[in-house]
Amino acid sequence: MPTLILVRHGQSEWNLANRFTGWWDVDLTDKGVDEARAAGRLLAEKDVQPTLAFTSLQTRAIRTLHLALEECGRLWIPETKDWHLNERHYGGLTGLNKDEMREKHGEEQVHVWRRSFDTPPPEMDAGSDYDLAADPRYAGIDVPRTESLKLTIERVLPYWESAILPQLAAGETVLISAHGNSLRALVKHLSNIADDEITGLEIPTGQPIVYEFDENMKPGERRYLKDA
Amino acid sequence: MPTLILVRHGQSEWNLANRFTGWWDVDLTDKGVDEARAAGRLLAEKDVQPTLAFTSLQTRAIRTLHLALEECGRLWIPETKDWHLNERHYGGLTGLNKDEMREKHGEEQVHVWRRSFDTPPPEMDAGSDYDLAADPRYAGIDVPRTESLKLTIERVLPYWESAILPQLAAGETVLISAHGNSLRALVKHLSNIADDEITGLEIPTGQPIVYEFDENMKPGERRYLKDA
Repeated sequence: MPTLILVRHGQSEWNLANRFTGWWDVDLTDKGVDEARAAGRLLAEKDVQPTLAFTSLQTRAIRTLHLALEECGRLWIPETKDWHLNERHYGGLTGLNKDEMREKHGEEQVHVWRRSFDTPPPEMDAGSDYDLAADPRYAGIDVPRTESLKLTIERVLPYWESAILPQLAAGETVLISAHGNSLRALVKHLSNIADDEITGLEIPTGQPIVYEFDENMKPGERRYLKDA
Repeated sequence: MPTLILVRHGQSEWNLANRFTGWWDVDLTDKGVDEARAAGRLLAEKDVQPTLAFTSLQTRAIRTLHLALEECGRLWIPETKDWHLNERHYGGLTGLNKDEMREKHGEEQVHVWRRSFDTPPPEMDAGSDYDLAADPRYAGIDVPRTESLKLTIERVLPYWESAILPQLAAGETVLISAHGNSLRALVKHLSNIADDEITGLEIPTGQPIVYEFDENMKPGERRYLKDA
């Protein structure tokens, strides 16, 4: 049975500092490392062993993947890193402390930007310290200047359809290590969640989510691996 | 200028225990981790930044790759893991302590097995604890039962020609994280070293070796990056 495993990266430095991160590349905290390792141990315990992995171009997701694979003895499986699985781009909010934002723009506006399905935050300024247009990692890629969840979904799903789903259909057990919003995009699609509900759905860090697919590649229930 | 960087994995647990390892999958020691990180820091310092990576299916080489990439800020580059870059298979010697082997077979015989260009060690027994034929990592691969350096070269070079060289020719800066003998195979080819000389050539652990190629893809001198 084709099996999909989703893992959100462990705690990052900016999760801890309560700053909007998006595409900015921050590392895992020690707690994040522990979460990633625990995810890998759970895969081994439950004997849900990935045969193929996908991740974003962001250190926190890549390291989460590597740490999890190390723990389940699967560091050797093929892995593909792709920007389509990156976190939602938070535009001009990138780097800002969430408390400061609330003071400046008000709790409600920040909540809209974070949780609205289709309202993107203000665009990132061209001169921003967090501008990634010149980062060699994104050479040849049209780096977004901001993204709503809707826009995030619009770049995650075509990648899912073209690169990941065919591998599942071929019988691979696919592990995706990614981010809160790129995983929301997948969960919305696979569990058929409404626009106004998906923004409130929390994807816990380091907690593997599993979907099994039937012979018609229809996904079953979304389950936490720990409950399997 | 197309650039190739070769890195032999840092010290492994069995390097330390003085046991023949070959295809058996042992992890890095703490010293090995430090060596891998130092290799990555050197890449950053010398500004020789890889754009594409290859490694074996063995944990010690994969972790060396990841640790080095982490240190030079390049964890996001594409990486390919392939058994053709695995260490030489030491056959029936796998797992044996080198001192015990010397006592049992004599210093000279052990030296022949380790250093002869074309004499493989005795084949691994089918029932050996170190038999990898059933390891899912090698599913579909005809796992060798023993290899001479000559046999190792005969599987490394076709992979070099078909998978790695075209990437270099396309302008990538390629990092290969691999093993003493799979790297000997490449160095022999690139630096045109005679059969009876290559077996005595030591490839130091965690010490990046660099080749630059001209427009006809002819490799230049072999250099240690630290001396560049």
